[in-house]
Amino acid sequence: MEKAIMELEAMGRVAKRASRRLAYLPTDIKNKALLNISHDLLAKKEEILAANELDRREAEASGMSAAMLDRLMLNPSRLEAMAQDVRNVAALPDPVGEVFDMRTQPNGLLIGKKRVPLGVIGVIYESRPNVTIDISALCLKSGNAVILRGGREAIHSNRALAKVVQEASSRAGVPEGAVQFIENTDRALVDHLLKMSHIIDLVIPRGGAGLIRSVYENARMAVVAGGIGVCHTYVDKSADLNKAVAIAYNAKVQRPTVCNALDTLLVHADIAPRYLPLIAAEWAKAGVEMHCDARALNILESQPGLKLVPATEEDWGKEFLALVAAVKVVASLDEALEHIERYGSGHSEAIVTEEYEAAMRFLNEVDAACVYANASTRFTDGAQFGLGAEVGISTQKLHARGPLGLRELTTYKWIIFGMGQVRA
Amino acid sequence: MEKAIMELEAMGRVAKRASRRLAYLPTDIKNKALLNISHDLLAKKEEILAANELDRREAEASGMSAAMLDRLMLNPSRLEAMAQDVRNVAALPDPVGEVFDMRTQPNGLLIGKKRVPLGVIGVIYESRPNVTIDISALCLKSGNAVILRGGREAIHSNRALAKVVQEASSRAGVPEGAVQFIENTDRALVDHLLKMSHIIDLVIPRGGAGLIRSVYENARMAVVAGGIGVCHTYVDKSADLNKAVAIAYNAKVQRPTVCNALDTLLVHADIAPRYLPLIAAEWAKAGVEMHCDARALNILESQPGLKLVPATEEDWGKEFLALVAAVKVVASLDEALEHIERYGSGHSEAIVTEEYEAAMRFLNEVDAACVYANASTRFTDGAQFGLGAEVGISTQKLHARGPLGLRELTTYKWIIFGMGQVRA
Repeated sequence: MEKAIMELEAMGRVAKRASRRLAYLPTDIKNKALLNISHDLLAKKEEILAANELDRREAEASGMSAAMLDRLMLNPSRLEAMAQDVRNVAALPDPVGEVFDMRTQPNGLLIGKKRVPLGVIGVIYESRPNVTIDISALCLKSGNAVILRGGREAIHSNRALAKVVQEASSRAGVPEGAVQFIENTDRALVDHLLKMSHIIDLVIPRGGAGLIRSVYENARMAVVAGGIGVCHTYVDKSADLNKAVAIAYNAKVQRPTVCNALDTLLVHADIAPRYLPLIAAEWAKAGVEMHCDARALNILESQPGLKLVPATEEDWGKEFLALVAAVKVVASLDEALEHIERYGSGHSEAIVTEEYEAAMRFLNEVDAACVYANASTRFTDGAQFGLGAEVGISTQKLHARGPLGLRELTTYKWIIFGMGQVRA
Repeated sequence: MEKAIMELEAMGRVAKRASRRLAYLPTDIKNKALLNISHDLLAKKEEILAANELDRREAEASGMSAAMLDRLMLNPSRLEAMAQDVRNVAALPDPVGEVFDMRTQPNGLLIGKKRVPLGVIGVIYESRPNVTIDISALCLKSGNAVILRGGREAIHSNRALAKVVQEASSRAGVPEGAVQFIENTDRALVDHLLKMSHIIDLVIPRGGAGLIRSVYENARMAVVAGGIGVCHTYVDKSADLNKAVAIAYNAKVQRPTVCNALDTLLVHADIAPRYLPLIAAEWAKAGVEMHCDARALNILESQPGLKLVPATEEDWGKEFLALVAAVKVVASLDEALEHIERYGSGHSEAIVTEEYEAAMRFLNEVDAACVYANASTRFTDGAQFGLGAEVGISTQKLHARGPLGLRELTTYKWIIFGMGQVRA
């Protein structure tokens, strides 16, 4: 272990050195590296798939579930999709080097901010091997060095993919050590990595809630992770019924396992008797189970074919990640706002209304990363928001909020052009 | 203690509730509150000075040093200066409400970012009572609620000042609880405050290095604190000698006790024999002690009237906060860059050069909050950078870097205007 830790520290120093050059590496070299990676993913298909085959055989022998095996699997079409994603990153504008807020001060000093990479990013991830390619591409494009630490179950695949990235980027002129891969899967190395705040500027955990919590608790450096999404859609008394059905249906059903899916439906009492039967009928077709408060239950209990359950206190503020929704009838917009303030996780919240003032109040008063009027919360996504690639969705308030794109992997420094000025 | 903690939690809930309204409080109400505070500071001079007199009598009895007593003291001219500072904050533009990056997406969704306050800010500070006014004004203007916890030795002054702030802002229509003051000076309450991440979005420690370290180690929420400044000035071989003397003199002497003062002077070997005697003579007049490496010592040792000390390894990377400078002769710009990378704290770094390429390389390659060509590092300051008021200077990379102004006390949320869109 001693030796492995010393190797990790050495790896860190190399990454740090590489990050200094990466910081001002021309965009065309970074793009060339990305296109090389995209090319090599297909040219070296055989090696990559053979390595993945090894992982899958070991995983199968150890009794991994079919769902987990599927997440682990690479095949020609998945490789093609990965290669395409890398080409997409190459096509995005380079966030680095932008100079902004630059002004001449009264004493003649020219002072402004220049966008620069964060430096070295650590990424700790679980079984999906595509993260190796995905995050390497994002870090390269944003000028950051990266230290990758993938899960044990995908070690052969990750090693093969990291080798592709390293060779392809080195060929383009990217400094050695820009992308580092930790081969040793000992858990103690992760603990040490999280202490390396002298090297690593930001750590990104990609995986389940357990991994994310553990990284938040143990990391000595900044952490950015996808947050928990407890998302509400509030159907106001003036809502258009068709829009309200379409939006709540989409938010719950289109992809129920993700953080921007609807968890709680709040409905104004005036519209509930007309609206709830409509959405309940649509949701029933998709198999949605409704955890209803007493007033919603009262409206729906005689309607056939519904999966109704009386809501308990635990249903409010719960992220279901499944075809389940909590449903509550509220007396007013104010009650909806209070409920969201109390139970929301600050991810994505929506109002459906035809009243201008209700929409504006909701947009003003709800404190969340993404606040919607008359649209599905499912849009909370880097690509949908026009950011291109996405690193994750932040529910923190500092640095960046909501979908994190390439720009959120950067910071700025102040640059000052003087002519000999001194302070009076 | 149990009871005090429950009271603190209740205070937190009130602050949180107030923060929701503060978030969209019109600028003119916030400015009215600031002008009221400014007015009341002078109108209630008697009460404030009497409270301060109490603090100073107790402090004197407990044997407080003259320097500390001076920091604690309020008098009519200091109150006038505080009132003026608050008027200055009122005159700054409101950072809240700005909408930016707003675009219509191909599906018709109008998506953009709106600048909003962080929410609730906790401030832990030591003896200077002016912080009570200063930070309250900055938080009010940026729409944040604030929970103040001042030092025990200034409790009477702080209580009187907090009362002025609360009454004056309430009169202007600021929601009750926007500015909270913890009267209990028990240390255990600070420990509890630092755990209240469900209430407090950001904590700002204002005081010595011990306080700042302790807050970083114990806070469960984000922390922004002034960082340690180990600042280098590098005099390149092509430097203009007059500019180089003026800049290094100013950076070291103008105010040696602050974080943006020069700590280490790096001098290119080609210019050292001409430059070092000039700056040494100037520094000697101001009483600067020079901790020199062997080559600098060799150049300076026969010059009369200097305070020379051979440098040791500890001198590199040391923040002196005094009339002391480490001095090193380097063989090249590259050696200077390597030295800064190794020993700098990422605060403020300067090059003095007449060569365009050297200036550009320095600005590109040095990784620090503020990088200067041909100016004194003493300019690293919110007012000098045109930000108006300053909360502190950050050496962190995430969220904000360098001088922190009102805008750095805000975040953004995404606002999305739809017409019924759902995700395909």
